[in-house]
Amino acid sequence: MADLRADLVRRVRDNLSDGASQLARVALECLEAYASVPADDAEDLRRKLLAFADELAGVRPSMTAIHGLVARWRGSMVAYRGDAGSLRDHARDEARRIHVWADQATEATLATAVARLGDRHRLLTHSISSTVHRVLRQLPRNGLSVVVTESRPGLEGWTLAADLAREGIPVTYITDAQAGIFVEQVDAVLFGADAILDDGSLVNKAGTRLIALAAREAKVPVYVCSESFKCTEQSPTSVALEEKSGSELRPPPVPGIRARNCYFEITPPELITDWLSDQPLAPRFGRD
Amino acid sequence: MADLRADLVRRVRDNLSDGASQLARVALECLEAYASVPADDAEDLRRKLLAFADELAGVRPSMTAIHGLVARWRGSMVAYRGDAGSLRDHARDEARRIHVWADQATEATLATAVARLGDRHRLLTHSISSTVHRVLRQLPRNGLSVVVTESRPGLEGWTLAADLAREGIPVTYITDAQAGIFVEQVDAVLFGADAILDDGSLVNKAGTRLIALAAREAKVPVYVCSESFKCTEQSPTSVALEEKSGSELRPPPVPGIRARNCYFEITPPELITDWLSDQPLAPRFGRD
Repeated sequence: MADLRADLVRRVRDNLSDGASQLARVALECLEAYASVPADDAEDLRRKLLAFADELAGVRPSMTAIHGLVARWRGSMVAYRGDAGSLRDHARDEARRIHVWADQATEATLATAVARLGDRHRLLTHSISSTVHRVLRQLPRNGLSVVVTESRPGLEGWTLAADLAREGIPVTYITDAQAGIFVEQVDAVLFGADAILDDGSLVNKAGTRLIALAAREAKVPVYVCSESFKCTEQSPTSVALEEKSGSELRPPPVPGIRARNCYFEITPPELITDWLSDQPLAPRFGRD
Repeated sequence: MADLRADLVRRVRDNLSDGASQLARVALECLEAYASVPADDAEDLRRKLLAFADELAGVRPSMTAIHGLVARWRGSMVAYRGDAGSLRDHARDEARRIHVWADQATEATLATAVARLGDRHRLLTHSISSTVHRVLRQLPRNGLSVVVTESRPGLEGWTLAADLAREGIPVTYITDAQAGIFVEQVDAVLFGADAILDDGSLVNKAGTRLIALAAREAKVPVYVCSESFKCTEQSPTSVALEEKSGSELRPPPVPGIRARNCYFEITPPELITDWLSDQPLAPRFGRD
């Protein structure tokens, strides 16, 4: 069953196309699938489940939603008393239950965002976020248009632009470098979140802070749209930010060049107009 | 000879790898080559030379160095009195003379920049500029390192990174979106210029203003390194900024997506620490 475990971990580790919210659900599905792992008895099963949960929670350290949802499930496994068969059922049930709970948080987040955006029809977003994508789909179509950055090197924006256009939403597709030009032509910037830190800082795809700086110059509001389960106790100094292989940039094959591929960066709360979520987050960060 | 003219215009119009300073020299070489155009007499030749100069000066409107150097040559053609043969010689001589004058301005600019950068060893640059490239080559090597952005969609940074590394300068190669992260790790930002406007604003590759905003946040100085012949009477509202085909971004082939490819953007003088040039430019823009 080492293959099952490795396969499931890979589903989360190597998935660079889904955002944190979606990937946290993939993690729950992995936990559900792993409940079938062979075990000698209840304690052996629990030990295996917890070890798997720990591995899964750690593979994408910048995406705290995974850690948060997995930790909920983990706590329930530790507390459960019963034989191996019922623990197995409980592991599956809990994964599904937390999935449903997460879905409710997402629905509440979407409702908040749609209400708050109101008549801001021209929006700009960066990278891909399933939550932002669903907000865009729910917004009234009259006048709606979205500027999408390509988001090198993964080109997550390419996928989002294609999906939005297929859904009938007019898309302006730009390089990340053009964000400073186009942010002046929108009514609001809408970011998803990989994590929200203890001071309200946003962890999101590299390039986010540059756009937020340009939005402040242009007096365009910047909204972070995220379920509250992406909030973490971690601070800007303690959070681990993932770096991927520089080879993804296809740098020149010349000795002396080090290509860097920092996937995430931190955008401080003073660049964020508000957090749109299933719970009011602004008061947590000292805002009215 | 329509082919000669069209070929020469293409050398300037379709050249997206050279910066403005280099391209202005290419334009001078085109003027020199075009002096061989067949003509009935001196007036016919002059008419053809001036028409060609006007076309050449207009093909890359954001790169005012071309316009400036071509205008010098044009003025000399208007004023010249003599027969067709001597006008032809004069056209060639003037192109070469202005080329030499431009080279002297560049040398003086390099000297200013090298002296001013002093012991700032860790630099960040964006896009490609032959002037910046030459400054980097002349800087002392101890501790020198350069962060180079790839500069989508043309990937001019790829070429610069390869050249610098071959010359033994350590290079960190990043996506444009990572500039906000890496600008915090350098001693200065060094931009070339496509044009410098009447208020000191910089016209340079899209992405420049985002980097300048992040540099201001990080309290990292931003230098524009440019010959004074790139200064223009044009203002941020009057200057024409080139846009290229959006197909260069390879957007998703889905109806409803408009890919934009604004090559240049304007960075205002308040984001520029100083202009390093062959002449003191800061006083022109109201700085001490």
